[in-house]
Order: sequence, then structure tokens, then C-alpha cells
Amino acid sequence: MRSHTRYLTMNVPARMDIVNITPEVESAVRESGVIEGLCLVNAMHITASVFINDDESGLHHDYKVWLEQLAPHAPIDRYRHNLTGEDNGDAHHKRQIMGREVVVAVTKGRLDFGPWEQIFYGEFDGGRAKRVLVKIIGD
Amino acid sequence: MRSHTRYLTMNVPARMDIVNITPEVESAVRESGVIEGLCLVNAMHITASVFINDDESGLHHDYKVWLEQLAPHAPIDRYRHNLTGEDNGDAHHKRQIMGREVVVAVTKGRLDFGPWEQIFYGEFDGGRAKRVLVKIIGD
Amino acid sequence: MRSHTRYLTMNVPARMDIVNITPEVESAVRESGVIEGLCLVNAMHITASVFINDDESGLHHDYKVWLEQLAPHAPIDRYRHNLTGEDNGDAHHKRQIMGREVVVAVTKGRLDFGPWEQIFYGEFDGGRAKRVLVKIIGD
Repeated sequence: MRSHTRYLTMNVPARMDIVNITPEVESAVRESGVIEGLCLVNAMHITASVFINDDESGLHHDYKVWLEQLAPHAPIDRYRHNLTGEDNGDAHHKRQIMGREVVVAVTKGRLDFGPWEQIFYGEFDGGRAKRVLVKIIGD
Repeated sequence: MRSHTRYLTMNVPARMDIVNITPEVESAVRESGVIEGLCLVNAMHITASVFINDDESGLHHDYKVWLEQLAPHAPIDRYRHNLTGEDNGDAHHKRQIMGREVVVAVTKGRLDFGPWEQIFYGEFDGGRAKRVLVKIIGD
Repeated sequence: MRSHTRYLTMNVPARMDIVNITPEVESAVRESGVIEGLCLVNAMHITASVFINDDESGLHHDYKVWLEQLAPHAPIDRYRHNLTGEDNGDAHHKRQIMGREVVVAVTKGRLDFGPWEQIFYGEFDGGRAKRVLVKIIGD
């Protein structure tokens, strides 16, 4: 069995934003030499997400509006978590809606995607460097 | 290491519906010959979900009502995504709540399920053929 | 390829609560002898979750309040599912928000975690024993 691990570093200046990381994941799959297997991609931080959806800017705008409705940033004292001195209680909630990770099949040496699938990093508490893990296992 | 890939084609006439795909996944696991491993099942389209829950029609009704509350289909202009000419902005949101994929353990040649676990396809923008990927890896 | 399976038994007296199961998963990884691979951890019951987030009691309180807003327990007849004689319709919804499973990379024989990642069991219909599955595959 082959395995390959790559760590991406994300630097998102905005509090909330969405970044397409598909090219980096494809490059890690090529490096791995895996022809048939599974590829895990996960946020290593708990105020960020990795998810698969459409690379369409209107949709990304819609997601941000919707997540802000479901888990508003302000008022800060809405979240008991923020009594610790943080102001990112909302980000921990937004990340649960969008998810921590995706697992993608690797078939014939490539990510086995549907017609519109792209992998995104969702940042909900930006302004500092965070990491994404890519792990491929297979033969 | 063994691996096996199967693609299911889903044809759901309703805009939103839930279909039990457990028998098809079980069949793919048997075909794979894998005794110990992991089985990934994911929607290949970004307005659909694969999830595990209960095969109970009242619950499926409840899910549809709840998802319509969390991300209403109408009015269409609620979603900037629909400015592209689509009317499925809501479906991209509903799919994030229900998830893209499940990963199930394969133990002694079978899906290692709890007492009520069943695998479902959740369609949120029906009326056309879509695919589900089943990938099993292991020994 | 190596594989290892462990079942944890959870006994949560409250209807809703959150329990850190990271030590049990770490122990299963050590037992597996896997150095490079993937570790699946999933709830085997459909009114419970496994998720990764922060081990901070204020945040766990916030999650419970938020989930109760998104999918209230009462009134019971809010859910058609409860016509079956159950009163846990809400729990099936809460579990979809928080997720069924996590997949964690195993690197150099350990869970490949970011700085704050911890694995939690989320119980939404407590008062009886339930199981969590841990499956590790790799080399």
C-alpha cells in the first residue's frame, strides 16, 4: 500500500471566505503515485471547513449570508465560548454546517469527480495561517 | 490491496426526495471481495447528498419540511446563484446540511452497521439522471 | 495492509450531551500497529454523532442551545416521526447538523491532528447504551 501526506497552508485575510484548493489536492494525488485508493482532505483547525460544491461566486456569497443567519458573529456575548476571550464562537458553528473533511475516490490515478465537483477551504475566523491536511492511501 | 468502483445512476422525478440505496452498496461490497476495509459512498452531483439515517417515511417527511425551512426554494431571487439562470440555489444549501458522503467500515466482508443504519440518496434538484460513486478498498 | 476494529460503548444519562472520546481512539490506533493510514470513527446509532471540534465546555453549551433552536425537542408532535411512538425526531435532525463520522489521517503511528482537534461523541437521545465504531486501515 502506498501513502502520501501533504500539508497546505492557508492565509485568508477576511474573517469569512471560500478558496478553491482543487489544484493543490490534484497535485498531491499525482505525487502520491496512487492509482486506486482514497484521498482525505481536512481542515486541521476547528474554525474552518473543507467541503465540495460548485465554483460559482454567487453561490459562495449565498453561503456566507446563510451561515451568518444560522450562526451570527455578533453580538459576541451570544456565545458562552467567547467568555474565554475569543470572538470566534460563530466560526465553530459555521464549520459544523459546512463540515470538516471530504473523502474522494482516486480512480485511474485521478480524483474521481462528478461534472462540477471542486474542493473548497471555508475560512470562518481568518487573519492567521491555518493548515489543511491531504492524505492519500491506495495502490 | 483490493479496490472496487461502482457508479449508481439515480433518476428521481420529484424536486426533493430520499431513496434507500443500501442494497446497491451491499452488492458492490460483495463484488469487491474486500473482507476488511472502508467503503466510500458519495453523491457525484452538488445538489444531492448521501447520508445514513433511519428508513422511516415519517422522518423523511420531517427532513424535507425542515430543509425547506432552513433553505427555502422560493422566492428564486433569494439566491444570487440563481442569477446564473439556475433555480437550484436552495439545493446547494440543503446538500450541505445532509452531507456529500458517508464512509462505512467493511468488517468480515459486510458493511459494519449499527442496528438501524441505512444509506440514503437525498435528491434536492431532481428531474434528471445523477450518479453516486461507491468505492471499496481493503484486503 | 493492516486493519483493526474496536467498538466503544457509550452510556450518556442526559438526553443531550457531548463526550471526548479521543483517548479511546488513540488507544485503538496504537493497538492497530498502523503507521500510515486512515482512521474512521462513526456513531453506530442514528440519533448520535461523532465530530471533531474544541474541548471547551462553553462551546459545548453553545452547541446544545443552537441545536435545540435548529431542531427543538418539543412539542413532540412537531415531528411526524414521533407518530411511531418515539419522541426522538429532534435527535435525528440534530445528528445531521453535527455529522455521523470523522475520518482522521494516521501519520507516523499517530492521529494527525491540528493543534486543537479532539474527537467527540454527541448524544441527542441518551439514557441507553449505544456504540461507536473505530476502524483503522493502513500499513
